[in-house]
Amino acid sequence: MRRTLSMVVNDQPGVLSRIAGLFTRRGYNIESLTVGTAEQPGLSRMTISTTGDEAELEQIIKQVEKLIDVISVVSIGEDALVARELMLIKVSASAPARSEINGIVEPFRASIVDVAHSSLIIQATGDTDKNDALVELLRPYGIIEIARTGVTALIRGQLVSA
Amino acid sequence: MRRTLSMVVNDQPGVLSRIAGLFTRRGYNIESLTVGTAEQPGLSRMTISTTGDEAELEQIIKQVEKLIDVISVVSIGEDALVARELMLIKVSASAPARSEINGIVEPFRASIVDVAHSSLIIQATGDTDKNDALVELLRPYGIIEIARTGVTALIRGQLVSA
Repeated sequence: MRRTLSMVVNDQPGVLSRIAGLFTRRGYNIESLTVGTAEQPGLSRMTISTTGDEAELEQIIKQVEKLIDVISVVSIGEDALVARELMLIKVSASAPARSEINGIVEPFRASIVDVAHSSLIIQATGDTDKNDALVELLRPYGIIEIARTGVTALIRGQLVSA
Repeated sequence: MRRTLSMVVNDQPGVLSRIAGLFTRRGYNIESLTVGTAEQPGLSRMTISTTGDEAELEQIIKQVEKLIDVISVVSIGEDALVARELMLIKVSASAPARSEINGIVEPFRASIVDVAHSSLIIQATGDTDKNDALVELLRPYGIIEIARTGVTALIRGQLVSA
């Protein structure tokens, strides 16, 4: 089962490598990690998406909580989560292919953010599965590059995530 | 000056902590880091946004290139870049405040993705400055939580980023 950890940490060099190192030492795979400014100055919110053994993850959470500069850690199940990922895709596109690609991009509420002679950059936002589906639809045109942020998330409703 | 590093790495545990550790040991601050699946299976694209001494950054890039599981590293200036960040903001919102907030959110092409009795979650995509501006406009309503992915980026036009 996929678990999402939402953490608030001090915005200090070293926090990221300490947390990532803890997962590595236990051989626990991080599917995605995002980190950005949190609601208060000096704090960052880090979101880690993982799949793996639940009991092992509980152990990791306990160790993360003890790390210096870590303020709070919460594990959120998929049902309680608003989870989104941003993706940029550079795809080959001759002039005739462009309108076809437009027809694919629109229903995904994605948008074209850069146009060159023979390529486009498309920006898409959604959950991981939706973004994966868009990649598959664009693959026949020739995907040049993909850049994805990984998942960021908040708990639904009024509760506080971490 | 802000520099953006775009790297292609093998999707292996330990890559993230090795790269982050290299920045930490040199006391070089990472503003944001994102990592997600790249265009080929088994590869991830990592995007690091930094500000700091250029010469020092060149040294770090050389060391990153030598790391195991790192396939390529490119440093991209702001002018050649399509750079985007995704942000989720949970904001206090009574029924009367909701329509006011709608009026703020629309011109930013942001959208409301969750509604509770006294709060909303807003999803916004843009460059860091645009997202910062939205946060400031929403601050008077009471910001409960913010989750940001950090910046992901591709080179404009047909060139390949890394």
